Amino acid sequence: MERRLTLRARPARAARQKVVIIGLGPIGVELGKLVLSQDASFQLLAGVDLSPQLVGTPLRRLLGPQAPSTSVRETAPAPRGEALAFLTTTSSLRGAAPSILALLNQGYHVVSSTEELSYPALRAPRLAARLDRAARRAGRCIVGTGINPGFAMDVWPVILASNSQSLEHVQVHRVVDASQRRGPLQRKIGSGLTAAQFEALAREGKIGHVGLVESCAHVADLLGWPLDRVQETLVPKLAPRRLRTDHFDVPSGRVCGIHHRAVGSQGGHERIVLDLQMYLEAENPRDEVHLRGKPSLHCTVHGGFHGDLTTASQLVSAAVRLWSMPPGLHLASELPAPRRPARRVQLAFSDADS
Amino acid sequence: MERRLTLRARPARAARQKVVIIGLGPIGVELGKLVLSQDASFQLLAGVDLSPQLVGTPLRRLLGPQAPSTSVRETAPAPRGEALAFLTTTSSLRGAAPSILALLNQGYHVVSSTEELSYPALRAPRLAARLDRAARRAGRCIVGTGINPGFAMDVWPVILASNSQSLEHVQVHRVVDASQRRGPLQRKIGSGLTAAQFEALAREGKIGHVGLVESCAHVADLLGWPLDRVQETLVPKLAPRRLRTDHFDVPSGRVCGIHHRAVGSQGGHERIVLDLQMYLEAENPRDEVHLRGKPSLHCTVHGGFHGDLTTASQLVSAAVRLWSMPPGLHLASELPAPRRPARRVQLAFSDADS
Repeated sequence: MERRLTLRARPARAARQKVVIIGLGPIGVELGKLVLSQDASFQLLAGVDLSPQLVGTPLRRLLGPQAPSTSVRETAPAPRGEALAFLTTTSSLRGAAPSILALLNQGYHVVSSTEELSYPALRAPRLAARLDRAARRAGRCIVGTGINPGFAMDVWPVILASNSQSLEHVQVHRVVDASQRRGPLQRKIGSGLTAAQFEALAREGKIGHVGLVESCAHVADLLGWPLDRVQETLVPKLAPRRLRTDHFDVPSGRVCGIHHRAVGSQGGHERIVLDLQMYLEAENPRDEVHLRGKPSLHCTVHGGFHGDLTTASQLVSAAVRLWSMPPGLHLASELPAPRRPARRVQLAFSDADS
Repeated sequence: MERRLTLRARPARAARQKVVIIGLGPIGVELGKLVLSQDASFQLLAGVDLSPQLVGTPLRRLLGPQAPSTSVRETAPAPRGEALAFLTTTSSLRGAAPSILALLNQGYHVVSSTEELSYPALRAPRLAARLDRAARRAGRCIVGTGINPGFAMDVWPVILASNSQSLEHVQVHRVVDASQRRGPLQRKIGSGLTAAQFEALAREGKIGHVGLVESCAHVADLLGWPLDRVQETLVPKLAPRRLRTDHFDVPSGRVCGIHHRAVGSQGGHERIVLDLQMYLEAENPRDEVHLRGKPSLHCTVHGGFHGDLTTASQLVSAAVRLWSMPPGLHLASELPAPRRPARRVQLAFSDADS
């Protein structure tokens, strides 16, 4: 049997969202280019950064010829009407909070890559409640998201868990080949350090992935699991031989990356394992979810979610979906399912009932 | 570095949802058992079915000892306060519409496995608009969902697409081993028919998977793609040798399943391929998504989403998430990300700021 059906497509009306980008580091720049490439959905009002090297730089030099003909500013302009700020300046919730409050006061919604904002009640429940109140008062929304935290190790496994009638255990493995990533990321994972230097930085909390315990708490919250303990381990991956990238030349035996793991448990029983490896020349890079339950489930993203591209994608996706939310501080998991930034299109058979 | 962090867990208050189940076929029974197993989240008020064989049957005989001590009724009772009806009686939107309108009038939200309701504007935009108006007037919600349509070939690939900055092509393969499934499903895919019998039924629309073109339109809508054509093909899988299950004995050369495919295109360019194979002793059962874009993505659920268990899971998951939605007719993709039916739990470090 073969059937050809013609469709009529009715695009939904959608106004362009006015946006600003606060923080023009690698994520802000990637985000800016993505926003400009979707000019049916977004209008970029301004780029903001506090660093003296960037203030006054023409946006077009950073983001390409589609950018508005303005320069990087030190503060966001007052928006006319509803607008949204992408905030990509810091991983720290306490570091980001003053900026978020100021942006709300100006009338901006805030979508941020701040890792600790992905599940803000974990470290700072009172601050999270204060941000929520401020957002409600301003009639605006706040959400913290990205690929990780925000998707790969929290929202995505919980989406897959919607297929299980009951669930005992969640395990997520993310293996990232850092050889293909930008220099600052290769530095962030400790490339070239000795094991002792790595251990010292790890004890001070100056190395490792920010957001892993937030992801663990986010998963537990959505699954209704009252965890009482999270055990976090961070050990270096050591180069099995000399490893060279465009940015580093790592002798054999030196650090070539991180192995960061968070294990959440309840009454001594392990419930959630989040296992992240980011290292040079990683073998079999992938994102993998194992759910043990009724039914169990095993899912693999071959090659893994791409780090930098997907962070920008997730921030833009959240911005599109935030528009329909009530005011307040939201988790990425509270947004409706992702849709593309482009306008939705209602489709009907051409001989349908209307 | 190793760190043990203690957590304090604060369960969110959540009232039990009052529910009824309309239609006590295989899906309704699976759903009833699932609802009863989650008695912290749900209270089953009644089971309803029109078939003379079922009316008057004690619910406990169908659903087990946890069921209320009532019998199957012909109509839903008038609910006190807010309640939700699971409707699992038909695949047809026009068939389900009178029941949905009656349930709204009684004050029920409606979550239905009706396949054509998963994207109702495709076949009946006026009827869909009428259901939406009726739901708004009643202050209640309607959603049609399940594993397929509702997740595996529509919502799930679009969730994965949130990681791509731009997207050219979506391809989804679902391969189901029908040998492990219930007898009615093995019958539904044509087990034991001749190829000619299959082709005749296919031309009359009496065999094949209901909802494949709905999934295609749903994906296109969320991606903002104004498709102008869907080509649907349905051909039998023929048994390569004698195949025996608990329910069928299929001679070599007879039908042992379906290969159903929908290809959506725009201006002659193929954009979406949904390819479903359900047959006895299927090789490499799986759910697989290929996205071509920036970045591309390839994801596999090994063994595939389990059919009957996951349909019930998705219906219950939608019921939990529907509670926070504004009144109206919603697509499954408009709900917030899935969470477990159990109460959510806010987690904080025990030394956090509060």
